[in-house]
Formats: sequence, structure tokens, C-alpha cells
Amino acid sequence: MIEQAIYHKPESEYGYAVDGRTFCLRIRTAREDRPKITVIYGGKYDFWETQFRKEMTLSYCDRLYNYYTVELRPEDIRLVYVFEIQQGEEVVYFSEDGLSDTYDFTLNFYNAFQIAYINDSDLHKSVHWMQDACFYQIFVDRFFQGDHTKDSSYINLPWGQRPNPKSFAGGDLQGIRKKLPYLQELGINALYLTPIFKSISNHKYDIQDYFTVDAMFGSNEDFAALVEAAHARNIRVVIDAVFNHVSDQCSQFQDVLMKGKKSRYFDWFIIHGDEVDQQKINYECFSACNYMPKWNTSNPEVQDFLIRIAVYWIQEYHIDGWRLDVSDEVSHFFWRKFRQAVKAANPECAIIGENWHNANAYLQGDQYDSIMNYAFTKACLDFFAFNALDASGFADKLNELLMRNTDTVNNMMLNLLDSHDTHRFFTQVGENKDKLESALAVLYLFVGAPCIYYGTEIALPGSYDPDCRRTMDWEQAEAQGSTWKLIQKLTERKKNEPALHSHQVKIYAEGNTFCLERGDICLRIDGSTYTHTIERLR
Amino acid sequence: MIEQAIYHKPESEYGYAVDGRTFCLRIRTAREDRPKITVIYGGKYDFWETQFRKEMTLSYCDRLYNYYTVELRPEDIRLVYVFEIQQGEEVVYFSEDGLSDTYDFTLNFYNAFQIAYINDSDLHKSVHWMQDACFYQIFVDRFFQGDHTKDSSYINLPWGQRPNPKSFAGGDLQGIRKKLPYLQELGINALYLTPIFKSISNHKYDIQDYFTVDAMFGSNEDFAALVEAAHARNIRVVIDAVFNHVSDQCSQFQDVLMKGKKSRYFDWFIIHGDEVDQQKINYECFSACNYMPKWNTSNPEVQDFLIRIAVYWIQEYHIDGWRLDVSDEVSHFFWRKFRQAVKAANPECAIIGENWHNANAYLQGDQYDSIMNYAFTKACLDFFAFNALDASGFADKLNELLMRNTDTVNNMMLNLLDSHDTHRFFTQVGENKDKLESALAVLYLFVGAPCIYYGTEIALPGSYDPDCRRTMDWEQAEAQGSTWKLIQKLTERKKNEPALHSHQVKIYAEGNTFCLERGDICLRIDGSTYTHTIERLR
Repeated sequence: MIEQAIYHKPESEYGYAVDGRTFCLRIRTAREDRPKITVIYGGKYDFWETQFRKEMTLSYCDRLYNYYTVELRPEDIRLVYVFEIQQGEEVVYFSEDGLSDTYDFTLNFYNAFQIAYINDSDLHKSVHWMQDACFYQIFVDRFFQGDHTKDSSYINLPWGQRPNPKSFAGGDLQGIRKKLPYLQELGINALYLTPIFKSISNHKYDIQDYFTVDAMFGSNEDFAALVEAAHARNIRVVIDAVFNHVSDQCSQFQDVLMKGKKSRYFDWFIIHGDEVDQQKINYECFSACNYMPKWNTSNPEVQDFLIRIAVYWIQEYHIDGWRLDVSDEVSHFFWRKFRQAVKAANPECAIIGENWHNANAYLQGDQYDSIMNYAFTKACLDFFAFNALDASGFADKLNELLMRNTDTVNNMMLNLLDSHDTHRFFTQVGENKDKLESALAVLYLFVGAPCIYYGTEIALPGSYDPDCRRTMDWEQAEAQGSTWKLIQKLTERKKNEPALHSHQVKIYAEGNTFCLERGDICLRIDGSTYTHTIERLR
Repeated sequence: MIEQAIYHKPESEYGYAVDGRTFCLRIRTAREDRPKITVIYGGKYDFWETQFRKEMTLSYCDRLYNYYTVELRPEDIRLVYVFEIQQGEEVVYFSEDGLSDTYDFTLNFYNAFQIAYINDSDLHKSVHWMQDACFYQIFVDRFFQGDHTKDSSYINLPWGQRPNPKSFAGGDLQGIRKKLPYLQELGINALYLTPIFKSISNHKYDIQDYFTVDAMFGSNEDFAALVEAAHARNIRVVIDAVFNHVSDQCSQFQDVLMKGKKSRYFDWFIIHGDEVDQQKINYECFSACNYMPKWNTSNPEVQDFLIRIAVYWIQEYHIDGWRLDVSDEVSHFFWRKFRQAVKAANPECAIIGENWHNANAYLQGDQYDSIMNYAFTKACLDFFAFNALDASGFADKLNELLMRNTDTVNNMMLNLLDSHDTHRFFTQVGENKDKLESALAVLYLFVGAPCIYYGTEIALPGSYDPDCRRTMDWEQAEAQGSTWKLIQKLTERKKNEPALHSHQVKIYAEGNTFCLERGDICLRIDGSTYTHTIERLR
């Protein structure tokens, strides 16, 4: 047995409370080792004399490891436990002291694993509507222009032509509202909109006023009407919280520019010196963009200001979630305070971070609910586009991703193939429709909430920004081609199959065939042709 | 190379910010592998084109693993990195995607490790006075009676006789104050007192009134005088926060007993039903003790009440720290709120949890500063008392303990050999003075704050509670025997040697000799005789 492979940690994705009574435990071994593993558990104050046993199940494998899981509902929620690992004749115990040939239960208070108590305020509660959510991401300026009465003088890109970084095509909120019947027919029940607030850019990630919808996109009333119409169709609306940075045009930064250290907003930013120098950029920014100064989210006044925004759009406009831009550079402290306020306003408001990397430190139940799952994107690219993974490697990788976080988090992950910040997946796979469609099958059948980027349903191509932000082609969309029809079928399944709402999944390879099972649904992808089938088992 | 052994995780004890500019990184390999490891790092937005390199140092070994460390002070604090691992001719890279033969830096935004930004509000800041703290734990009733004018009718244990669970010996706060010169001579510069608030028991872990010192121990004024006198001698005072549970005699629980669901305090406890049944114990308690109902710390009113207590004793009586009783059963949510209030009142107030097990989830900088390090206790018992570890196993175990948390936390750990909740260490080692004294040498030279339990300096014996709570023997204490003199030397070193204030340490075995080096100080313990030497290197 490879001892170095064995891993467990309480109060982590390896040991956590699912609800007020139920614990989920995981333990890891080397892939080449398949011992029988039993958890020996009991209550904190009588474990020395009373022990229960439950055998664990080998549920996931990746390239290097096997993962065993078990669910426990003990009488006493002050859970104490050790693992018994049996390989052939050999039996060893695994506790905080590591592996040992014997285990002295009378000394368990020193070295057993424990989850000391389930406190309600620490529980990561699921956002229920995310269990069957089928997301559609809209880059607002490029989706559809619904309002032809507005001042259109800013529009400089004829619909259908290729955008550059300074293009404005005229898409707006009325346009989205008018296309709700279309989206509903496709099976969409959740929208994620890139920023909609007052800003001079087409992407609006440099916000000037967080309380006002940008006039290019419409009015606050247009947004209220959009949310109301969406809700009437059971479509949820998630919008973009750009709380890492702001436009240098915002009133607070302008005040600092004018008054320097005397400004009451001086400490709202992180300025190295007594005055702002926009040439030398002597203040913290998003990337190296001097026009996007970073908020000092360690300042309680800034925290309160941003949180007021977050609560305002929930209470006044009934949004269903916030997607958090550049959330990895904002403090954990802020996100905790943010979560408390947001969940107090609406416990069913989803909080989705933009962390491209392993975000485990943000996903303990005290900050986000989930993230944009770019690690999933990368796994799909490695298999379908880069030839970096074969069918078996792809299965291993997806299992590994599931083991990075709790099942609670996995079930709320925003899984995606591409976005406004990447090449389009269809372009990455050389415009191969079999690859795109098989990847979509994985997307919809994997654990979590699938999110497609507008135009995916018509296999819109596009390389990196600005090319991935082309205008939507409505003629093609109305034609409802093969990809469109596949997505319609997949959203149907996602919404109606209970097996797709649980976290249960079995992912493996048979020879060169990738297999993913949920309940009695089985997806198979041929590793040579990249074509797929979805069948009922038995 | 054993691939399964390789481990790293950003934003954990393997990768964290030490201050606003400095990162500490660790990576783990199998003990049998000693590759050359280089961290390749850069800024989040230009890592694809600009990379820096720094070789890592093999700093710690335990039974199964080697741990390499490095400190980085990059220009851009949005740190991105991968590891290059070279074993013989073989070079591999380690990223979030695991091991690979090549690494594509242009795709680093998907799978490099990162610590996205250092936000001041997330930094775990050191409590400076803990760096040279030498703690002394006092079980107040058994230390010294200073007030002979008080109503002594409750005293039922003649000083020097063995206590039972209901014994009262008369120790009090005036007694501690009178013994400050004694403690100062011993070298003590920090006290940890078990609870002092109004309560009917001798231990006072069942508190009736958190704002009033128990009359057996004195008055609030006596406490103020003690703190003032201690501070005048540069001795800090840490007291016990029993915030998990309370006495059933407290006014809130009494109100619930009387009015049931109509009590405004009903939700201050966790009651299963409409009325309290103290026979059936239909409410959550400490252990199964019906007279110690558990606070519902998920209730914001309870949070505010308890935090008001925490702040009161800091602001009004200038305590230097809180030791948190049964802290593992209280919510993370509560401890975060508690930390914010406590650190706002005094950033140098230490927060020390009573978690007997790995408390990593509480030690991220948002909750406690440290814990009572019972894993250290267990390691010492395994080596000195239980014969479960030899010199090399003891060295491995201590290294492993250091790798459980950040250096910031390690440097504030409350290390102890015993307490009011264990057998006395001297009894555990069969009253062998060589063992006790060698263990004390480890205690004072290990990373963290040493804490001795009153009477250790006179090698007071005692098995489990109540025997470990015998009255202090002042005749012996004044005699200043060998153990007393050793502690005096060790406190002297701890306070005056800068090497003992850093987290740097080298722990290993040479044959059957345990070795611990800090700066040019070297402790050696013979694994057969358990005698020790402390020498200057070179």
C-alpha cells in the first residue's frame, strides 16, 4: 500500500456536514490500492466505549488516487471517527496520528478525527433553483437590440460585422426581454448577464454608477421589466458584481483626483503616496489598467457601499444571483460580509465567483456558493481540442475536479465551455460539430449547472476577445439546427431527470470510450471520433 | 518518485501571505525522494511572458514526507506559480493539473497555482507579545489564598489534602497577585487563568454571570488590581471564555425554565420541543451535563451578548487574551464575529482555542490565533511516557505538527505538557525527573509559546481530574529545586534569545538522540536515558 497517498481532513471537502444531521466523509488511497475501508465512528464523549462501523464505497478514481465515500447520520452530531483499512490480511488504522497497526480508543480525544458539532450558521445551504438550472450567458451589447427609440448615436458596429475592442452594436435589455420566448423554447431557465450598469465601455466592467442601468442598455425600469418577464417564464436572472475595481470616472475616484489626501474617499482606494498619478499608476488597479482603480475592500466604508449595492438589486429588482468579477482578488473578509447580507436579503440568491483556479478557500460555505468552473473548461479543451487527454484521462480529470470541493458546491458549480473571456469552444475544436455537441452532452450531464455562452446553440465561432463577442445571428438561431436541437433535448433532461439533480455520478473509461452515468442515463463518447450516444441503462 | 506524495495547495498552510508583501510556500514529496525543487513564479497578468525562479529548501521531514519551503517577495502581489521538480535527469512540472513533462505558460491562467492578491483584512497578524511569552496556567481555587477576610465558609478542603470533584480549597485572585513576585522570579510573563466568573463549582466552567468575578475568588476590583499588578511586572493575563455553554442557573435559562416557549430567551438555547425537560435533557448541552445548556451561537442575539462580554473584559479590565473553552463545538461564524470585535478592541489580544484535534479550519487568520497544542502534548507522551515513538519518531512527529499550520500560527501555539484536563505529565512519565525536565526543554525550545501548569516547577504529581488539581505546595516552591531552576533558565532563554522568537527550527534524530536546533542553540535528548543537554553550536 502506498502510505503517502492516504489522505483525509475533517472540516474540508473530505469531511463535512450536508445538513443538520448528515455527514459526508471521503478518504483517498493510491489508485493501485483497493483496500476495504470502514469508518469507525461515535460521539465525542463516549467514543472510547461505544463505536459504530460503516463500510465505505469506492466512488471516484483519478490518475493517481481512489476516493472512498460514506454518508453518516449518527445520533450524536459531535462526530468522532477513525478509519480501518484492510488490504488482504493486513489491517491498519488511520487517525490524525497517521497509520498505525493498533488504535487505542481510550486515547481518542487526542488523535481521532472529529467534526465537533454541526452549527446551523456554518452549514453550506444549497440554492435550490440551481439544481436544475440551465444557464445562458449574454454579452448584452451583442445579443439583440429591442429598443429602437433610444439614442442610437453610440452604435458603431453594423449587426453581423466583426467587432473590435471599441465596437458598440446596440444590444439592450429590451432585446433580451423580447427574446425570452426564444430562450424558453431552447430550455433556458437562468440568464447570466455581463454588467449592465452605467459605463462608457461596451463590456461595462468599468462601472461609473452601480445604481443605474446604462442608457445604452435601457433604464432601471427596463431591467425591472426584464426580471419580471423572465420570472413569469420561470427564468432566473444573475447579474455581474464588479466589486474588485471601478471606473476612474466614478464620483469617488474623481473626488480623490481633485482633492488628493483631503478627499473623504482617499482610503476607498489603495494609493501609494499622497496624490494619484495616473501616468505612473501609483495605485492598485485591475491588471495594469489605470482607468480601473481597485476598491480598498479592507475599508469598512467601501464594504458597506458595495454591499448596499448588492442588497439593493436583490430587494428592489429581485435578481436571483450575483456573479462576482475578479472575485479572487477581493478579500475573503469582504465576501463573508457580502454573503451574510445577500443571504439575509434572499437565501436563494446564488453567489458565483469568477475564480479560474481552485477556489476551495472561497467555497467553505461562508463566501461563495460556487464558481465559474474554468477547470472544467480546461478539462474539456484538453480532451476535445488539445489532445492532452484521452478518454481515460478525461474521466480521471473530471473525477479529480469533483474531489476538489464538497458535493454541495459541486451541485452548484457553473460549468461552462467558454465565455466572453475565452476563445469560443467551437473555434477551439476546429469548428468540429461532433466535438462541440459531445462536449455539450458532458456539460449538461456533469454535476452542476450548465452554462452556455450566447450563440453556442448556433455554433457561433470566435477566437479571443473581441472576436468571441460577435453579434448574435438570429437567422441561424431561428433555423434551429442540430446543435440547437441537441441543447433543447439536454435542457429538457437536465430539468426533468431527478438523477441530474443529485451529486451522484459515475465517470470512467472503457477502452477508448468515455462514459458518464447518472442514475440510469449513460453518456458515451468515442475517443477517436468524438461522437456521442446517450442511452438508458437496462 | 512517488507521485502520490506530492502536495501543494495555495491559500492554506502550504501557501500564504506572511505580511503585505511576503509569501511563504511549501511543497511536499515522499521522504525517500529528494529532488531539487524550484518555484517558477510571476504576476497574474504577465506570467505567460515573464517568469522568475527560486530554489526551495528541504526544511522539514516526517515519517512519510519531505517538506520544501521558500519565501518570496515579488513586485506584483498577485502571485502565480508552478513548481519545477528535478530528480536526476528527469524534470517535471507541478501545477493545479498535477505533474506534467512540459508546462505551457501561455495557458497558465487555467492551471497555475495562484494567491490572487494580499488583502490586508485577510492577513493573519501576529500577537507580538506571544513571541516571547512563557505561560503559567493557574487553576484558581488551588493556587494560593490571598484574602483571609472573605467569607470562607465554602472552603471544605484543607490545603495540602487531595481534592475530590466537590472540593473548595480557597485559592483566589488576591492570592495570585501576592504570588506575582514568585512567578516573575520563575520567569513567567503570561498567566492563563481557568474561569473566574460567578459559578457554584470549583472549576467555574458553568458560569452564571459573565460580568461578575465569583465571590470565592474575590471581586471585580480584585481582578482589576491583579491585572494592573501583573502588567506592572510585564506579565500578561489571559482568561477563560466559556462561550459554548452556560450554567442552568443563569438568568436566561431560568427564564426559559419558567416561561417555556414564551421566554424571550427560548431561542438562546437549542431546545427540541416547546418546554425544557431537564430529566430527559431535550436540549443541547455540554457533553451530557444537563446543568450546562449549550448556547445557540447561531442566534445573533446570543452572538452579541457573548461578544459584549468579550469586549467588556478587554476594555474595562485590560486582559491580554481569551482562551476559548470547548471552542471546537462553537460555530466558525461566531468565532469570526468574535475575532473582529476582539481585535477591534485590542489587536494584541490573543485568541487561543481549546481544540484538541487538528484545528486548521479555525486557524486561517479569521478565527483564532492559536490553540492549546494537545497534539504536541500527545507527541511528548508518545516519546517520554508511552514508548510509542523513539527519538526519530518524535522528531518526525514534531515536524509533522509544524506542517499542519502556517508559521504565523505555529509561532503563537500554546504548547503544553499537561493541564487541568489531563493527568499531570510528571505522573504520566512515572515521576521520572529526567523525563519531565527533558520534556520541559523541548517545550521551551519548540516553536510557539510554552505553557506550564501550576506546580510543574515543583514536579507536582497528579492523575486525572480531580487529582491533577491538587493544592500548590508553597514550601516546595520556595525551595527552588532542580526542575524549578531549569524552568527559570528556560524562561530566561525563551525571553532573550531572538532565535526562539522566529519560526525557524531544525528537528531531527542522530541515531537514538533527538536533536532540536534554533539558531545556534542545540537541544539533544538521549533516547535511552531521556537526559538532555543544551549547547551552543560552534
